[in-house]
Amino acid sequence: MHIGMIGLGRMGANMAARLRHGGIEVTGYDTDPEVSEVPDLPALVAALPAPRRTVWVMVPAGEPTTAVLTELASLLGEGDVVVEGGNSHFVQDVKNAEMLAEHGIGYVDVGVSGGIWGKENGYGLMAGGSEDDIQHLEPVFAALRPDGPTAEGFVHAGPVGAGHFAKMVHNGIEYGLMQAYAEGYELLATRPELIPDPGTVMGAWQRGTVVRSWLLELLVKALEDDPDLGKLSDWVDDSGEGRWTLLEAIEQAVPTPVISAALFARFASRQESSPAMRAVAALRQEFGGHAVRQTDVPL
Amino acid sequence: MHIGMIGLGRMGANMAARLRHGGIEVTGYDTDPEVSEVPDLPALVAALPAPRRTVWVMVPAGEPTTAVLTELASLLGEGDVVVEGGNSHFVQDVKNAEMLAEHGIGYVDVGVSGGIWGKENGYGLMAGGSEDDIQHLEPVFAALRPDGPTAEGFVHAGPVGAGHFAKMVHNGIEYGLMQAYAEGYELLATRPELIPDPGTVMGAWQRGTVVRSWLLELLVKALEDDPDLGKLSDWVDDSGEGRWTLLEAIEQAVPTPVISAALFARFASRQESSPAMRAVAALRQEFGGHAVRQTDVPL
Amino acid sequence: MHIGMIGLGRMGANMAARLRHGGIEVTGYDTDPEVSEVPDLPALVAALPAPRRTVWVMVPAGEPTTAVLTELASLLGEGDVVVEGGNSHFVQDVKNAEMLAEHGIGYVDVGVSGGIWGKENGYGLMAGGSEDDIQHLEPVFAALRPDGPTAEGFVHAGPVGAGHFAKMVHNGIEYGLMQAYAEGYELLATRPELIPDPGTVMGAWQRGTVVRSWLLELLVKALEDDPDLGKLSDWVDDSGEGRWTLLEAIEQAVPTPVISAALFARFASRQESSPAMRAVAALRQEFGGHAVRQTDVPL
Amino acid sequence: MHIGMIGLGRMGANMAARLRHGGIEVTGYDTDPEVSEVPDLPALVAALPAPRRTVWVMVPAGEPTTAVLTELASLLGEGDVVVEGGNSHFVQDVKNAEMLAEHGIGYVDVGVSGGIWGKENGYGLMAGGSEDDIQHLEPVFAALRPDGPTAEGFVHAGPVGAGHFAKMVHNGIEYGLMQAYAEGYELLATRPELIPDPGTVMGAWQRGTVVRSWLLELLVKALEDDPDLGKLSDWVDDSGEGRWTLLEAIEQAVPTPVISAALFARFASRQESSPAMRAVAALRQEFGGHAVRQTDVPL
Repeated sequence: MHIGMIGLGRMGANMAARLRHGGIEVTGYDTDPEVSEVPDLPALVAALPAPRRTVWVMVPAGEPTTAVLTELASLLGEGDVVVEGGNSHFVQDVKNAEMLAEHGIGYVDVGVSGGIWGKENGYGLMAGGSEDDIQHLEPVFAALRPDGPTAEGFVHAGPVGAGHFAKMVHNGIEYGLMQAYAEGYELLATRPELIPDPGTVMGAWQRGTVVRSWLLELLVKALEDDPDLGKLSDWVDDSGEGRWTLLEAIEQAVPTPVISAALFARFASRQESSPAMRAVAALRQEFGGHAVRQTDVPL
Repeated sequence: MHIGMIGLGRMGANMAARLRHGGIEVTGYDTDPEVSEVPDLPALVAALPAPRRTVWVMVPAGEPTTAVLTELASLLGEGDVVVEGGNSHFVQDVKNAEMLAEHGIGYVDVGVSGGIWGKENGYGLMAGGSEDDIQHLEPVFAALRPDGPTAEGFVHAGPVGAGHFAKMVHNGIEYGLMQAYAEGYELLATRPELIPDPGTVMGAWQRGTVVRSWLLELLVKALEDDPDLGKLSDWVDDSGEGRWTLLEAIEQAVPTPVISAALFARFASRQESSPAMRAVAALRQEFGGHAVRQTDVPL
Repeated sequence: MHIGMIGLGRMGANMAARLRHGGIEVTGYDTDPEVSEVPDLPALVAALPAPRRTVWVMVPAGEPTTAVLTELASLLGEGDVVVEGGNSHFVQDVKNAEMLAEHGIGYVDVGVSGGIWGKENGYGLMAGGSEDDIQHLEPVFAALRPDGPTAEGFVHAGPVGAGHFAKMVHNGIEYGLMQAYAEGYELLATRPELIPDPGTVMGAWQRGTVVRSWLLELLVKALEDDPDLGKLSDWVDDSGEGRWTLLEAIEQAVPTPVISAALFARFASRQESSPAMRAVAALRQEFGGHAVRQTDVPL
Repeated sequence: MHIGMIGLGRMGANMAARLRHGGIEVTGYDTDPEVSEVPDLPALVAALPAPRRTVWVMVPAGEPTTAVLTELASLLGEGDVVVEGGNSHFVQDVKNAEMLAEHGIGYVDVGVSGGIWGKENGYGLMAGGSEDDIQHLEPVFAALRPDGPTAEGFVHAGPVGAGHFAKMVHNGIEYGLMQAYAEGYELLATRPELIPDPGTVMGAWQRGTVVRSWLLELLVKALEDDPDLGKLSDWVDDSGEGRWTLLEAIEQAVPTPVISAALFARFASRQESSPAMRAVAALRQEFGGHAVRQTDVPL
């Protein structure tokens, strides 16, 4: 099989490498001519075998993805298939699919998990689309997914949108899991007289315990390199999918106290000074004459 | 009526002043000889009319209160009454009462709310103790409580411990209310193009709206003086009673997501660097190669 | 002054009554012919004095409001003013204003607080729009707002959208306040041996205390009628503005742990069975063989 | 090596079996004569080889554990070692150790994780105690812990108390992890038109993804047997260690929004009717005349 890969950033390049290693021929395009293998999208499309030309799009969500899909709509045609492997919102997927369907082009959205480890370990894949398009892509999915039973690393989750919806929820869960381990780490680290080395304690949770997981292994690895994580700032970004998960929860009236708490902890981590907490300080000063800290007093 | 007041700090001194203004004779004792009216506790007790000598204790919770109560146990006797007006834990009240009861001394715990405004506005009072002791203290309560219907500013909440229990819950609620206003303030302040002056908006909530309250009035006053609260740090202390409220919730299995969130926001406000969020940052770096901030990079 | 009021439901009818009592002439229209004073919108508009015909729209947000505004766009003209007093989203306000501006019609969005008590107490008002339109409406606002200093019950919050934005945040705060009192009530009610009557305790918080507020007064009133609130179900609806507040918080990356906790508590209150908690039960059964409850076992 | 095992319930019996399989001789005692191998504790102690008699206690925390330790204090002596493998609080461990130390008896607290799967997979072990006692117990730990590198399934966490402290934090994390997966499951299950089978989606997360873990595998297994978890009630117990984790967080002022949210979700799951939410409903009725549900109206 021979597919086109659009977007050769960290994720796209790694995936192309894994695909080739798995026997899939890949022609890659990127806006960066240094890494692109073809000069432009028409050239990419021209390089692909018909019928059922297949293009995997791996570019940033939003404008960049829309621009690529729009151009592909004019370059591809009946029976071809586009895979949106980036992080589009699942509602956008439906619009994308409709736009391409007008040209007879199939659309599959795939949520891809695994980060920088996927190249070696394989990528967890969640796909949304028609049975027919998914079957056509089976060799591609087979090359990308991890070794082991198919159903443990790949799912045809549902119709168009289902792949990114599943990935969105996956990421929401991820936020909650990370915060849970993080709170536990802090609790361990707060009692050095009892727990002199939190990293070795968490290290011992990697086998046999209820909390063992890949994230735990990563945290143990990080603590081996930097036992009190003193090299890192406590500033934590969020990628957008955690927010989408929460928006979905609100729309569907699903209580998600843990996922929201994890997201808010990240928001708070990025504030140099919290207006809300200044307001609380102001209130304490007003009603109780409680000591508060002025901004010119060093903390 | 003539009572002794032990502890002439901000609260005790203000309360003594209000009591005198209300026709109660007060003899005050403080460890600070500059403000004390008698040299020691024996002198204070000697100054009070028997029977039913009455002493109001208004010293810091914990050791200082215990020390005073222990000495009073040896100075007072049958039929006398001690009021613990500080912030003892309600379980400690029961122990205090038992200790004094061995000497025939009555014990009443009173939660006092109103902060520095109580001297002028009157204090909200929640009392725990026997019907008999509470009745004996009625003139004292009458002088301290705000104008208006008695039941709106004073309650005999229940047996010993009930006063401080009620005050503890009151303070837990207070934490939640403050945080709710604070979050709203921040939301207003985050859209200056739409809401150029959050303080005037909150000012207009003081009449007619559902959220009107005394705390709102205080926040409006603070915003009048300092419209973006830029003079204050976002470092917020907690007094202990919020923690007790949460301990009680845990013991009784009462879900208190709002009160706990308010308390945790204060904890977080006091951290220069959050170990938990450094752990989240470490995880993001490990699995995704996501950009994180090193501690030597200025935020 | 003479204005049209569209929508004579509970809110609209009460506001019309208060306006008339305040000296404003009101012609009312409602889709219900039983209460409408004119047969249709053209008749309403025809009844109003030109120039600067003024119509206050008080119909449900979404479709109904849009339909009314669209029809008004064709009936009114240069210099006329429409007030959207319902609960439109602040982003929708901008669209509404642009649509009407094409016809030279002014647009003011007003957040109205006070519920069923507003008729008697006056309504807290937050307005968004041009200085000119707001000034034109001053007599209307004067009649609606509570007695007392203007700035304590009315604010020109900012440009179009600012009124509903302020009201949205007001309602988010309201959710947090209500949940804080509710958690406190439950804590009191969980210790009947100590606090035999939570309602009287909360009653005594109405004067002098830090937590005194109008909402507290309402809760005390409710507890007077039904001391353990046993007549009510614990099913709690949400009106949409709490959700919008949270969506705004997510968009602006403002941590709002209290407002979100309050909203999620309502979501949870409406679930007959929580899928999430069944999942937690399933996990406990899987790893620990812990006793779980089967659905056929009565709770 | 030959040790005594006190408590042959599910955990104790499984551990004894694994120990024997690992070459450790075990004499077991239980209050149930059907399963006990000796008639009483003196007989158990008499069966053990001196010096360094070693007893592993695996009985319920609190009274039962204290009773066993007290009796052991009179039966054992200089150089013997007691292991508390149950779920004592880490502060209690210090008291236990002091009590036994008066008789020259060593004390090691071990947190044991792995549930019913530990017999086959091995148990994750966290130990607190002296270097000397821990070394003496090495063959026992080796038999119990999972295969693989020692440091991934066993840790000498610190002095007495550290083992149970580590296990307590482990369980707090566990609560957060479980709730995160559970919220994600509910989000998937709420969109059946998009995600017809949440279980297969979660099944595909077992390899390659960021959220893969043992708990995820267990949830997938549960969903295979019961795809909508319809056989289970949403009533979820908590074992006490989650509460202790939160108490510790409060004492140390560590923000733990996720762990607390997970705990409160369990508390709420067990309430037939939430007093707090009835209070919120009461407030809505009071200020807005909002429709609320009476208890006699079926939901």
